[in-house]
Amino acid sequence: MGRRARGEGRARQLQRSAAGGGMPQLSFQRFDNPHAPMTIVSDDQLEAIHTASLAVLEEIGLNFLLPEACEILRKAGADVDPDSERVRFERGFIEEKLATAPSAFTLHARNPAHDLRVGGNTINFCSIGSPPNASDLDGGRRRGARADFENFLRLSQYFNICHLVGGYPVEPTDIETPIRHLEGMLALQTLTDKGVFCYSLSRQRVVDMVEMTKIGMGLDDEGLMARPSLWSIVNANSPLQYDRPMLWGMIELAKRNQPVCVTPFTLSGAMAPVTVAGAVVQQNAEALAGLAFLQTVNPGAPAIYGGFTSNVDMKTGSPAFGTPEYAKATLLGAQLARRYRVPFRASNVNASNAPDAQSAYEAEMSIWACALGHTNIVMHGLGWLEGGLTASFEKFIIDVEICQMMGEFLKPLEITDATMGLDAMREVGPGGHFFAAQHTLERYESAFYQPLLSDWRNFETWAEDGAVDATARANRIYKKALADYQQPPMDPAIEEALRAFVAKRTEEGGAPIQ
Amino acid sequence: MGRRARGEGRARQLQRSAAGGGMPQLSFQRFDNPHAPMTIVSDDQLEAIHTASLAVLEEIGLNFLLPEACEILRKAGADVDPDSERVRFERGFIEEKLATAPSAFTLHARNPAHDLRVGGNTINFCSIGSPPNASDLDGGRRRGARADFENFLRLSQYFNICHLVGGYPVEPTDIETPIRHLEGMLALQTLTDKGVFCYSLSRQRVVDMVEMTKIGMGLDDEGLMARPSLWSIVNANSPLQYDRPMLWGMIELAKRNQPVCVTPFTLSGAMAPVTVAGAVVQQNAEALAGLAFLQTVNPGAPAIYGGFTSNVDMKTGSPAFGTPEYAKATLLGAQLARRYRVPFRASNVNASNAPDAQSAYEAEMSIWACALGHTNIVMHGLGWLEGGLTASFEKFIIDVEICQMMGEFLKPLEITDATMGLDAMREVGPGGHFFAAQHTLERYESAFYQPLLSDWRNFETWAEDGAVDATARANRIYKKALADYQQPPMDPAIEEALRAFVAKRTEEGGAPIQ
Repeated sequence: MGRRARGEGRARQLQRSAAGGGMPQLSFQRFDNPHAPMTIVSDDQLEAIHTASLAVLEEIGLNFLLPEACEILRKAGADVDPDSERVRFERGFIEEKLATAPSAFTLHARNPAHDLRVGGNTINFCSIGSPPNASDLDGGRRRGARADFENFLRLSQYFNICHLVGGYPVEPTDIETPIRHLEGMLALQTLTDKGVFCYSLSRQRVVDMVEMTKIGMGLDDEGLMARPSLWSIVNANSPLQYDRPMLWGMIELAKRNQPVCVTPFTLSGAMAPVTVAGAVVQQNAEALAGLAFLQTVNPGAPAIYGGFTSNVDMKTGSPAFGTPEYAKATLLGAQLARRYRVPFRASNVNASNAPDAQSAYEAEMSIWACALGHTNIVMHGLGWLEGGLTASFEKFIIDVEICQMMGEFLKPLEITDATMGLDAMREVGPGGHFFAAQHTLERYESAFYQPLLSDWRNFETWAEDGAVDATARANRIYKKALADYQQPPMDPAIEEALRAFVAKRTEEGGAPIQ
Repeated sequence: MGRRARGEGRARQLQRSAAGGGMPQLSFQRFDNPHAPMTIVSDDQLEAIHTASLAVLEEIGLNFLLPEACEILRKAGADVDPDSERVRFERGFIEEKLATAPSAFTLHARNPAHDLRVGGNTINFCSIGSPPNASDLDGGRRRGARADFENFLRLSQYFNICHLVGGYPVEPTDIETPIRHLEGMLALQTLTDKGVFCYSLSRQRVVDMVEMTKIGMGLDDEGLMARPSLWSIVNANSPLQYDRPMLWGMIELAKRNQPVCVTPFTLSGAMAPVTVAGAVVQQNAEALAGLAFLQTVNPGAPAIYGGFTSNVDMKTGSPAFGTPEYAKATLLGAQLARRYRVPFRASNVNASNAPDAQSAYEAEMSIWACALGHTNIVMHGLGWLEGGLTASFEKFIIDVEICQMMGEFLKPLEITDATMGLDAMREVGPGGHFFAAQHTLERYESAFYQPLLSDWRNFETWAEDGAVDATARANRIYKKALADYQQPPMDPAIEEALRAFVAKRTEEGGAPIQ
């Protein structure tokens, strides 16, 4: 019995982090959703969305604002108007191109223990990317700078629930633009050993970040082709446009077999129709065009369908996130991606200005939609606040708890003679209690999810201890995590080579904005 | 087009409350979950749980701590040990009794517009029941008293998302025990016109509350039999016991055809095995015994399967709520109830000591599990805090938003040519925006869920306006709702009769604790 109980404990993978310094957290692990994905529309309705998207592509088309991209598509048989850079796609073209996109792939990390499966029913939680501001209770809201940027990277490394890094967790605006991508990538690679991200901001930046990834991973060109190790997100400039920096990124990364996530930015009522159905038709047209372009550049290149459809507040024009509409659009996007057999990305979002109850309930609407739809990368999984304008240290900790709880929820229930506990009920009988039952003693240490942030003490104890609410506790926890953080080891020769590359490219002037 | 847009607006039922005084809220409406219920275990695993529960009932049995109840069961063929009050049930007995329980019924309210369907895929949100304390930001935590009790009833009436009342939203401890049920029921019936609740605390109390319901509804005995109008929850005194007050309530209400919800109180690790599987096996055994008893008293009496399995924190013994284990247990309970074709009740719970981010994310874990499992009554839907020890005014408002958002999420997406908006995309084209599109103008007023509590203004506007967080905004909103509240009309003759009944029964000494 004892052996079985320990076996169950292992199976539940509730081991604490070695670097955890006593803070309870889940081990780094893969989360697969064992349940059927939620379908938000019928098969017929899904086909109607699909067909409408194809009509958009065929009839209206998209602008591809880079002559090189137009030329690639023209050669492949798309209908390109060279003057307007408008590209129209026939149904057969889209279907043929989509057929080569892989349904799943491995995203490699510097630490192979942090390699990820992207596809199927696997859910990966990603740190926040790209907000211009950072905030915590002590210093309030401030422009993103290197110190906060690095601390968010440390938290992304420290917490095992963070599977990968989604760019700069806050923009380090105090690093000059031409060298920000060099310094940024150096920090990503040295402060974490998880999957890294490449901004598609200009051709030169992409090439620099590819070179640094090769150095960090110890790979040559061929090795990188074989091991996707650097992922990027490109946004459609909705409605129905891809602009130059995005197309450069798509070309440079796809041809090197690195994964690109195509995410239309379809805010319903602003850059997309005012209905969820219409916004997702447009999202789908833009995503299909982007995926088809990637497969035209390099058939078989790993690619991800990104859903980001939310709505605006029609009274103020402000974007809203974590709304009922967002949840439905996310599930619909996921259902479309499953139809096309490509991995899906969505986000853990909210529109709150503070890491408060609103930030939590809007985040939960997002996370549940992500999990139920089998979202493979939950972008902005940790730290997002204020519609993406701020990375919040307290929200990061709230999200660690939210994502851990979801991960734990996804673990299948064990229904066995041992877990059903009839012996324990026989032992205890009517009117007794189970605290001292053999069944309990064998399991109590790892029986239940142990929270990081939630405080379950009784009111009196909690009040005597200062009545500290969840946000204020999160403030303490993030600081403790930073104090406990240990930089992951790196071969000194590799680190030297990375620093030499950054120094050389800095001397050359970095990469001016194109 | 305009007509269609207005039609869609009506269909979405986003009308504001007439009594809303300008506060946006959803109209009183029925929420059906259009999606297949989530199955948390396979059919085989469900049968294993079912079979194990039957083994508990057959082999261990339950204590029914009321000779009259034992006698009812003995006469019906159950195996009763009169000395120990232990009752054992054969499989055939349970199956035969369950067969008469209705799969759905109507719970009638004083205002017929507030009648509810209980069963199938309909989800009803219920106010909090029975905490000993109340709290708000102004006055902190205090013992429940009439003023707070009445104010929570006013909020339960005011907010349309509250479908029914689940007892005293806070215990009015300043009303003497022998007459509390009289004064309490008078307040329930006069301050609200929604479905009311009866405490199963003693035979006399139940009879008094039945009489008052008949007066309030204008029904005689026969009329009440035909119109279930008074619902109750009885908890098993877990493990494996039903005590006297609960059994009195079951007998008195079932024989009058009033709905009783049987809810085992199976805290995993304390009153139930330390595994979710084991705790639910026990919950199921207790629920089946209770349901079988109700059907023995009155075959066909409306009955509800209640799931309340959560876990304790094994470090402190404190109960935990809104945990991953709670979500799984809720979904498993719902799946069992569907197997037995009886309505299901679960709860919107959390263990936070403050109406903060923890209270919100734990509540969301609960609400999603409830909704995905097709829970018919979400008990404690509004206002629960601190593991049920406190009714919080701010949490009530947070929960209005959480429940409204869930209700809105459950509305099916409309996938039609009009909603898919191809004309709008043709009109706007690549690079444009949809703010002024005809498609937008026709729909923008009712296109999206309009929040009550969430603040979507930009950071600067929000900060200039005092940087008020969600909890502090909830404090303002509950006061505004109380100011806007209007007592629902009641025939003066009925109110006089109710007051006369209370006066008479008070003069008689009320109902001393038995």
